Amino acid sequence: MTTQQIASQAVLDTIQARKSVRSYTDEPVTPEQVETLLRAAMAAPSGKNVQPWRFVVVTQPETKQKLAVGFNKMIATAPVAIVICGLTANPSGIANNNWTADCAAATENLLLAAESLGLGAVWTACYPYDDRMLPAIEALGLPDNIKPYCIVPVGHPAGDNKPKNKWNPDHIHYEKW
Amino acid sequence: MTTQQIASQAVLDTIQARKSVRSYTDEPVTPEQVETLLRAAMAAPSGKNVQPWRFVVVTQPETKQKLAVGFNKMIATAPVAIVICGLTANPSGIANNNWTADCAAATENLLLAAESLGLGAVWTACYPYDDRMLPAIEALGLPDNIKPYCIVPVGHPAGDNKPKNKWNPDHIHYEKW
Repeated sequence: MTTQQIASQAVLDTIQARKSVRSYTDEPVTPEQVETLLRAAMAAPSGKNVQPWRFVVVTQPETKQKLAVGFNKMIATAPVAIVICGLTANPSGIANNNWTADCAAATENLLLAAESLGLGAVWTACYPYDDRMLPAIEALGLPDNIKPYCIVPVGHPAGDNKPKNKWNPDHIHYEKW
Repeated sequence: MTTQQIASQAVLDTIQARKSVRSYTDEPVTPEQVETLLRAAMAAPSGKNVQPWRFVVVTQPETKQKLAVGFNKMIATAPVAIVICGLTANPSGIANNNWTADCAAATENLLLAAESLGLGAVWTACYPYDDRMLPAIEALGLPDNIKPYCIVPVGHPAGDNKPKNKWNPDHIHYEKW
């Protein structure tokens, strides 16, 4: 294989290897690793290049505990939780209808970067659920024009985590439905 | 570097190298390449593992022309257009509030896979814009519970396409906003 083919295969393999990791060891995630994750997130595409994503990096136990509202209780046990937030309107107050798509693309980049570093992470949704957004808004002091889109706890994987095989040719149509 | 480090760097480099490509050569995209893109898309995470994504692969010129409604006119000039659609409710009619997030994650995986193969692609939004969704619904004959989320034209890049540097530390907050 050429260097290009090796690189290409590494990308495709990592996309297939990414899995949701919900338990973590005590090993810390370094600031350099967090920066690598955020650099990947910010490389996502965004509508009209608005880059409406904002990130809150949380390591303090009491704040992580406030973010862990039930279904996402693993947030409290991860060394780091990254809250991906979205700017829902531009400075003149005009709504940005692309902010959820842009934040989702940034989140997927972040998850793939975590997988590539050997870290474990999982996408836990906040938006559009009020009962999930409000605790994050309060815990982080988010301003009115910023909504919490999702929270990604990150750590070193504990236990055995395997990716699901989700390939399903029935989900593909050709030319028309 | 170890093999693992080389693979990790390839993933991070591809995430940074991905760019929106809007002009394409006449070189076709092979069915094997399309399958690789769709395998990557289907490896995305989804809420409760519902996998609400559906894909329509369009190569017929008249259909591509119907999908090209203005802002996304490059669709007509790409060898292939992949329409990423979402199942907006489960079979018992209960709305799936995660379908847009899941389709967005699948789209980002698809774009990264295209970059890794040396192909050029761009995310053109349909949802939530009625004037963009209706032409796709009509051209493809989508059923009521399926919405077109976005359309990704794919081809071999023409001209010089460079990724934007979007790294912005001001978008990061620590512990609180």
